[in-house]
Amino acid sequence: MKQTDLLIKTVKENPKDEKSINAQLLIRAGFVDKIGAGIYSYLPLGFKVLENIKKIVREEINNINGQEVVMPSLLPKENWEKTGRWNVPEMYKIENEKLGLGWTHEEIVTPLVKKYTSSSKDFPKYIYQIQSKFRNEPRAKSGLLRGRDFIMKDLYSFHTNSEDLNSYYEKVKEAYFKIYERCGIKDKTYFTLASGGEFSSAYSHEFQTVTDAGEDIIYVCKKCGASFNREVFENECACGSKEFEEKKSIEVGNIFKLDDKYSSVFNFKDDEGKNILMGCYGLGITRVMGAIVEVFHDDKGIVWPKEISPYKVHLVSINADAEEIYNNLQKEGIEVLYDNRDKSAGEKLNDCDLIGCYLRVIVSEKTLKQLSVEIKKRGEDKTQIVEIKKLIGFIKNEL
Amino acid sequence: MKQTDLLIKTVKENPKDEKSINAQLLIRAGFVDKIGAGIYSYLPLGFKVLENIKKIVREEINNINGQEVVMPSLLPKENWEKTGRWNVPEMYKIENEKLGLGWTHEEIVTPLVKKYTSSSKDFPKYIYQIQSKFRNEPRAKSGLLRGRDFIMKDLYSFHTNSEDLNSYYEKVKEAYFKIYERCGIKDKTYFTLASGGEFSSAYSHEFQTVTDAGEDIIYVCKKCGASFNREVFENECACGSKEFEEKKSIEVGNIFKLDDKYSSVFNFKDDEGKNILMGCYGLGITRVMGAIVEVFHDDKGIVWPKEISPYKVHLVSINADAEEIYNNLQKEGIEVLYDNRDKSAGEKLNDCDLIGCYLRVIVSEKTLKQLSVEIKKRGEDKTQIVEIKKLIGFIKNEL
Repeated sequence: MKQTDLLIKTVKENPKDEKSINAQLLIRAGFVDKIGAGIYSYLPLGFKVLENIKKIVREEINNINGQEVVMPSLLPKENWEKTGRWNVPEMYKIENEKLGLGWTHEEIVTPLVKKYTSSSKDFPKYIYQIQSKFRNEPRAKSGLLRGRDFIMKDLYSFHTNSEDLNSYYEKVKEAYFKIYERCGIKDKTYFTLASGGEFSSAYSHEFQTVTDAGEDIIYVCKKCGASFNREVFENECACGSKEFEEKKSIEVGNIFKLDDKYSSVFNFKDDEGKNILMGCYGLGITRVMGAIVEVFHDDKGIVWPKEISPYKVHLVSINADAEEIYNNLQKEGIEVLYDNRDKSAGEKLNDCDLIGCYLRVIVSEKTLKQLSVEIKKRGEDKTQIVEIKKLIGFIKNEL
Repeated sequence: MKQTDLLIKTVKENPKDEKSINAQLLIRAGFVDKIGAGIYSYLPLGFKVLENIKKIVREEINNINGQEVVMPSLLPKENWEKTGRWNVPEMYKIENEKLGLGWTHEEIVTPLVKKYTSSSKDFPKYIYQIQSKFRNEPRAKSGLLRGRDFIMKDLYSFHTNSEDLNSYYEKVKEAYFKIYERCGIKDKTYFTLASGGEFSSAYSHEFQTVTDAGEDIIYVCKKCGASFNREVFENECACGSKEFEEKKSIEVGNIFKLDDKYSSVFNFKDDEGKNILMGCYGLGITRVMGAIVEVFHDDKGIVWPKEISPYKVHLVSINADAEEIYNNLQKEGIEVLYDNRDKSAGEKLNDCDLIGCYLRVIVSEKTLKQLSVEIKKRGEDKTQIVEIKKLIGFIKNEL
């Protein structure tokens, strides 16, 4: 993509109404545009980042046999009244209609799976969607971390016994860590014991990514590494240690054993008359995007991990024509953003750092004299001169 | 995908509250589940059909340089008051909030593109999204043809002169016909003159697919083939003919030259102080899915066109083990739905016809004796016996 064609404009000043680093950088770099508190448009570069995250999530959830569906967002109130969640603060209601907007989907997916199963042999079932969720959120002040209109992956599992639920819960845990690994944030992400909250009477688990921007606090045992969120933290760990480290963190995922909390409401039973057991597994796509920016940035801009980078290569021409190199990279199927703008070298390099694609390739009069280009990873200082004839091989090796 | 794993249940009786053929067949075959009037869940098979349509739309719109974004659905009322569209019947409003739900996006995309362009050189720009739209629709009685929560592709173009707008408008027209061709409905789809409606003071064009289920009526000139919708129909065609054929049809797309209707409201001008000119181009993804079913079905069920078919191959085992054939097809990257259920031959073949995948492959004791399978296209009567060792080549040749 040529930068002159792209709907993008980088901005030097931080937006006045955004305190979070993720929103500041994403707005300045032209990934998102703010429409209101917790409401953003995702521009072409932001859209590509979301698609990259969605692709990873789809692949890993399909790997554990998740079946993708789309449930509606506009929802009749009946089922929410049955579960007692019609009058919760999260629910946006439509004026003069008996309709609300989906902020979670137990009220839809439970009767749905009940309708499409007829015997114990039909279980387990694993159903998920990736979809906009709407949540009336008074604290929408953290950029993409807390939205009122945000994109979420929600997976629901259905079982006839708790061993099966427990075993799938472990599989989801593993799949989530694979997702975070591919998103670059696994090393900073803790599997944290949390309360069941509104969803479950028992415990749940959160995936908490440690960063200074975190709104949450987790307590990590210095002896065994177990971690707890504030609600369930006690002063002694199961391992006997009383020493904990306090860390600020962002919740990038949350999984619950719902057991029969919702199946009992909808009278959803197996062949023996026992309530079906459920698990639910959330992962905020837009929130992960925000968390990645909080973890991976420096004073110059965003530093996208390889698999998330909107374009793998940012090709920057400085007083030189890089059109042929651009075309050759495109032909090889390499995703390139080509800065062909008529701007100063300084401005182009600053924008390149701000946008933060994985590899920067500079073509200048100087490099062309050597029949070469200069390559640098956004996350490293080292630059390398690579001959143009070896460029495609070099890049493919890096990706 | 093994049918025993899939969330699907076919139903013999037509749903009582659905009069449209598309909803009846899609519900009976397990593609969609009805939540309320004009509100459906798309189950795994339905999800795959939607993804196939979206892929076609994306490819053809990207080919005419559309840039994909995601705008929010939850929208502050300010901009809608500016255009006078806050108090229209289509708008769902959120109780106690100054927020409405997006049923179209001129109010968002116009200020957005204004913000991200700074000179006449930045034009043209082409921005689109594929997204759930919400529309307060009292007549939501035609299944997927008229939804209250539906999926739409909306493209917006921005130009500094009308030649450029006109030329892009023609390109979109061509792209739409490519989309309808790949969806199998091109031959039945007319490019129809229509009024500008709420969007534009001038004319617009609709793409109308002829079928008995159509809620619209178009008038096709018997002499020159020009077509008109009811609002703009006059008794004489430009070619001089007064003879028209009346046809029932479904609107599967609608394109408008907005000219400066919205740019003038948002004071969006080029370098010379002239208002930017806009075009807008809608295409309902869920509606196209419904229209395809209306056009392609028989008394046994749906007959999916090749590129839309949820799985290209429906492999049906009748008193035989087709597991090895299933695995081999999967290994070759062929999308197969494998009916491995413990059901009678009659029930399996009926379900196969109802679901309507492009190719049916039967493995039975009888075919296995010949080291063969029986192959039939859903849309044809002819069956063929194909040796198992030649099966993959045969199928790849058909796809």
